[in-house]
Amino acid sequence: MRAVDPARVIADLRELDHLTGGPEGARRVCWTGEWDAARRFLRERLARIDGVEVETDEAGNLWAASPGVREGAVAVGSHLDSVPAGGWLDGALGVMAGLEVLRTCAAEPPERGVVLVDWADEEGARFGRSLFGSSAVAGTLDVEEARGLRDAGGRALPEVVAEHGVKLDRALDAQSRRARLAAYLELHIEQGPVLEREGVSVAAVSGTFGVERRRFAFEGQASHAGTTPMELRRDAGLAAARAALAVERIARDHGGVGTTGTLRLDPDIPTAVAGGAELVVDLRHAEAAALAAMLGETGAAAEEAAAKRGCGVSDEHVWSIEPIPFDERLVAAAREASGSDRVMASGALHDAAEMARVMPAAMLFAPSTGGLSHTREEDTREEDLVQAIQAYGRLVERIVAG
Amino acid sequence: MRAVDPARVIADLRELDHLTGGPEGARRVCWTGEWDAARRFLRERLARIDGVEVETDEAGNLWAASPGVREGAVAVGSHLDSVPAGGWLDGALGVMAGLEVLRTCAAEPPERGVVLVDWADEEGARFGRSLFGSSAVAGTLDVEEARGLRDAGGRALPEVVAEHGVKLDRALDAQSRRARLAAYLELHIEQGPVLEREGVSVAAVSGTFGVERRRFAFEGQASHAGTTPMELRRDAGLAAARAALAVERIARDHGGVGTTGTLRLDPDIPTAVAGGAELVVDLRHAEAAALAAMLGETGAAAEEAAAKRGCGVSDEHVWSIEPIPFDERLVAAAREASGSDRVMASGALHDAAEMARVMPAAMLFAPSTGGLSHTREEDTREEDLVQAIQAYGRLVERIVAG
Repeated sequence: MRAVDPARVIADLRELDHLTGGPEGARRVCWTGEWDAARRFLRERLARIDGVEVETDEAGNLWAASPGVREGAVAVGSHLDSVPAGGWLDGALGVMAGLEVLRTCAAEPPERGVVLVDWADEEGARFGRSLFGSSAVAGTLDVEEARGLRDAGGRALPEVVAEHGVKLDRALDAQSRRARLAAYLELHIEQGPVLEREGVSVAAVSGTFGVERRRFAFEGQASHAGTTPMELRRDAGLAAARAALAVERIARDHGGVGTTGTLRLDPDIPTAVAGGAELVVDLRHAEAAALAAMLGETGAAAEEAAAKRGCGVSDEHVWSIEPIPFDERLVAAAREASGSDRVMASGALHDAAEMARVMPAAMLFAPSTGGLSHTREEDTREEDLVQAIQAYGRLVERIVAG
Repeated sequence: MRAVDPARVIADLRELDHLTGGPEGARRVCWTGEWDAARRFLRERLARIDGVEVETDEAGNLWAASPGVREGAVAVGSHLDSVPAGGWLDGALGVMAGLEVLRTCAAEPPERGVVLVDWADEEGARFGRSLFGSSAVAGTLDVEEARGLRDAGGRALPEVVAEHGVKLDRALDAQSRRARLAAYLELHIEQGPVLEREGVSVAAVSGTFGVERRRFAFEGQASHAGTTPMELRRDAGLAAARAALAVERIARDHGGVGTTGTLRLDPDIPTAVAGGAELVVDLRHAEAAALAAMLGETGAAAEEAAAKRGCGVSDEHVWSIEPIPFDERLVAAAREASGSDRVMASGALHDAAEMARVMPAAMLFAPSTGGLSHTREEDTREEDLVQAIQAYGRLVERIVAG
């Protein structure tokens, strides 16, 4: 392998953005024509590399292998799909960096080979199921659950993915792709503000946060805003407000993150005390024990907030995933390649988390300007992109060498 | 005048409920066919009383005068219109009690006479403008503002009221109805829990609370719930939650009421820190100075809550009305008629507040079971209704006597 050329990666990213972006941002939502266009662009670029074999697996993931690939190959890549009105780097950075890695392999193919993967539907933007392709390869995709999903227009997932060559019933057959792979390495943008604040251009990622997402429903008594004295109210909205503030304190106490992103009052009119309030709390932490403690304290705080205002509260599980640590040896190699001591856990999920369940995996993060992602303002300074792409090239070269 | 018969009032109320209520509650929304049906029922009852003259004024209010009415007459009444899915007593109690007063006058007409008024559109349920008819008579109706109002179906107020015989441009001519009136007396349900808690069957009302309603918009930064560390967030939702809790404290401190009935987050999704939050605060107090202090402290608390989380906040006036005290002499008479020392201010607005601007006015309140109103569960114990109607009859008799 020769060294990667960051300029070619950035040029490819800009061209992809030109083809599939717009005034509102990236439009590469999976299982749409825009995503097909992004894939065509990638195939066209791959066709220029001598000896590369391109295939699509049963879950819609695209695989491109360097000449002479065999057992023990290293997988590189990320996802081309985006959220609607997304950014130009989220996912695309890792795919285009992987493409460049393949180009450097063409001249001097490494012994066991490198395989680029472009995962299908990392974002889950259309059907609400993220990590579709990588979870199929990891074997964690729940096919029955996926079968019931519909998009905003009411179309069922199996019907839509079939138009893109995927038979849902066979999606888990994509697990066979793991056989020849020894490791998975992914470059991605941070999508948060930490590295920019710290002035770090690229950093190793230690793993992904666990997530506990729960819905709390507070029930009080709707009553007239003018005629109900303060001491006789059962204001579910204030109980919910108190709980949301407790979530913030609990997250700080444990060094995790906790968010109340939705909070809805019922009846939600200015002249009525809220009789009902619903909020969804999203708790994240890199350590399972700390995450469990955060969840327990949040439940207790919700009960206390409800009781204080004569309300009841019930809660239900929305979604959760355990913290997934990356491979220690690969994380150490990633840190070394980054040239920085900074190692951070990822608060966002990534395909690498699914891969980490079934093989050694690691990631590198490039900074996100202003911490912004999933918006057309998403960006990374060019000098940071250059350093991150170079570090990624060094990491892959090191791991491919064994 | 002879004594009123509460049983007849309650029988009329039940028949009206039978005609214009349903499984969801009362359906007498003003400017609809159900309201017309309620009016027909009232006219039919009035037609049975000898010598009563019935007219509708330029604002749609219905007036029914006892025989030989002249200057110095006493007005009694309330409103037949309801909110959608409302209660059987809100407004209807005062109209049916006034009807009974007219019946008692028929046999022995009092010297200057009694006039029953059924105000048009007290609730403002269809166009969002409450006290339509009484504000026209008081001269405070803003005709230009009313001209621009539309219902949920997009129909304009002038067009809809015209179908019920009201020419909006002439509505203020209804002020002429004041000429012969010396006082206005209204019986209404409390619509709050105070009298029930205190075991009082009927109480005099000292006036109506002033109201300050303001919208506060908090602006922070939307960001990813997983990747944004707690210390780098600008969570507009938490700033709003803190402000809502401050409103509660401020209202308690001043002995008024303060409500955050609407609170909306933007983007309102579980995986994003709220970048925006909007709430509407409704503050009420019987004293103008205390209300002004509450408003000032609420603004300061919103600023402080915003600043603490790196957010900005702006606010705008939504609606306000000053506290309106009733006539001292009439309030004293109402207290005497009630047989209780309890005198309370009304947190809800009433047509009597508009009348109090232009003539001596007072009210009596009957308790509301559980403090509930504007719902089909709205109710008052029959023994309380009996006492309240009797007290109202005594009050009118006393004032008519001069």
